[in-house]
Amino acid sequence: MRSYRKELWFNIPNRREYINITPQVEACLRESGIREGLVLVNAMHITASVFINDDERGLLKDYDDWLEKLAPHEPITQYRHNRTGEDNADAHLKRQVMGREVVVAVTDGRLDFGPWEQIFYGEFDGRRRKRVLVKIIGE
Amino acid sequence: MRSYRKELWFNIPNRREYINITPQVEACLRESGIREGLVLVNAMHITASVFINDDERGLLKDYDDWLEKLAPHEPITQYRHNRTGEDNADAHLKRQVMGREVVVAVTDGRLDFGPWEQIFYGEFDGRRRKRVLVKIIGE
Amino acid sequence: MRSYRKELWFNIPNRREYINITPQVEACLRESGIREGLVLVNAMHITASVFINDDERGLLKDYDDWLEKLAPHEPITQYRHNRTGEDNADAHLKRQVMGREVVVAVTDGRLDFGPWEQIFYGEFDGRRRKRVLVKIIGE
Repeated sequence: MRSYRKELWFNIPNRREYINITPQVEACLRESGIREGLVLVNAMHITASVFINDDERGLLKDYDDWLEKLAPHEPITQYRHNRTGEDNADAHLKRQVMGREVVVAVTDGRLDFGPWEQIFYGEFDGRRRKRVLVKIIGE
Repeated sequence: MRSYRKELWFNIPNRREYINITPQVEACLRESGIREGLVLVNAMHITASVFINDDERGLLKDYDDWLEKLAPHEPITQYRHNRTGEDNADAHLKRQVMGREVVVAVTDGRLDFGPWEQIFYGEFDGRRRKRVLVKIIGE
Repeated sequence: MRSYRKELWFNIPNRREYINITPQVEACLRESGIREGLVLVNAMHITASVFINDDERGLLKDYDDWLEKLAPHEPITQYRHNRTGEDNADAHLKRQVMGREVVVAVTDGRLDFGPWEQIFYGEFDGRRRKRVLVKIIGE
C-alpha cells in the first residue's frame, strides 16, 4: 500500500466563498502515482467544508443564501459560542450542513467521477490562512 | 491491496424516491472477494444522495416532507440555478443535507453494520438514468 | 495492508448529548500500530452521529438548539415514524444534519488533524446502550 499527503492552503478575502479545487486534487493524484485506491479531501478547520457539487455560479449563490437562512450570521448574540469573543458560530453550523470531507474513488489513476462532480472548498469564516488535507492511499 | 468497482444504475419514475440498495452493495462485496477493508458507496450525480438509515416507510416519508420544508421545490424562480433552464436547484440543496456518500467497514467479508443500518439511494431529480458507484478496497 | 476494529460503547443518561471521543480513537490508533492509512469512525445506530468540530461547550449547546429548531422533537405526532410506537423520528433527522461518520487520515501514527479538530459522538436518542465503530486500515 502506498500513501500520499499534501496540504492545500487558502486565504479567502471574504467571510464566505466557494472555490473549485478539483484541479489541485487531480494534480495531487498525478503526483502520488497511485492508480487504484481512495482519496480523502477534508477541511482541517472547523468553520470550512469540502463538498462535491456542480460548478455553476447561480447554484453556489443559492447555497450561500440557503445556508444563511438555515444558520444566520446575525445577530451574533443569538449564539452562545460568540460569547467567547468569536463571531463565527454560524460558520460552525453551516459547515455541518455542507460536510467536512469527501472520499473519492481512484480508478486507473483518475478521480472516478460522474459527469458533473467537482470538489469545492467552502469557506464560512475567511480572511485568514486555512488548510485542506489531501490524503491518498492505494497502489 | 485489492480493489473492486461497480456502477449501479437507476431510472426512478418519480422526481423523488428512496431505495434500499443494501442487497446490491452486499452482492458487490461477495463478488469482490474482499474480506477486510472499506466500501465507498457514492452518488455519481449531484442531485442524488447515498445515506444510511432505517428502512421504515413512515420515516422515509418524514425525510421527504422535512427536506421539502428545508429546501422547497417551488416556486422554482426562487433559485438562481433555475435561471439556467433547470428546475432542480432544490435537489442540489436536499442532497447536501442527506450527503453524497457513505464509507462502510468490511469485516470478515461482510458490511460491518449495527442492527438497523441500511444503505439508501436518495433520488431528488429522477425520471432519467443515474448511477451510484461502489468501490471496495482491502484484502 | 493491516486492519483493526473496535467498538466503543455508550449509555448516555439523557436524550441528547455530545461527547468528545478523540482520546478513545487515539487509543485505538496506538493499539492498532498502524502508521499510514485511514480511520473510519461511525455511529452503528441510526439516531446518533459521529462528527468533527470544536470542543467548546457553548457551541455544542448552539448545535443542540439549532438541531431542535430544524427538526423539533415535539409534537411527536408530526412524524409518521412515531406512529410505529417510537418517539424518536426527530433523532433520525438530526443525525442526517450532523452525519453518520468521519474518515480521518493517519500520518506517522497519528490522527492527521488541524488545530481544533475533535471527534464527537452525538447522541439524539439516548438512555440505552449504543455503539460506535472504529475501523482502521493501512500499514
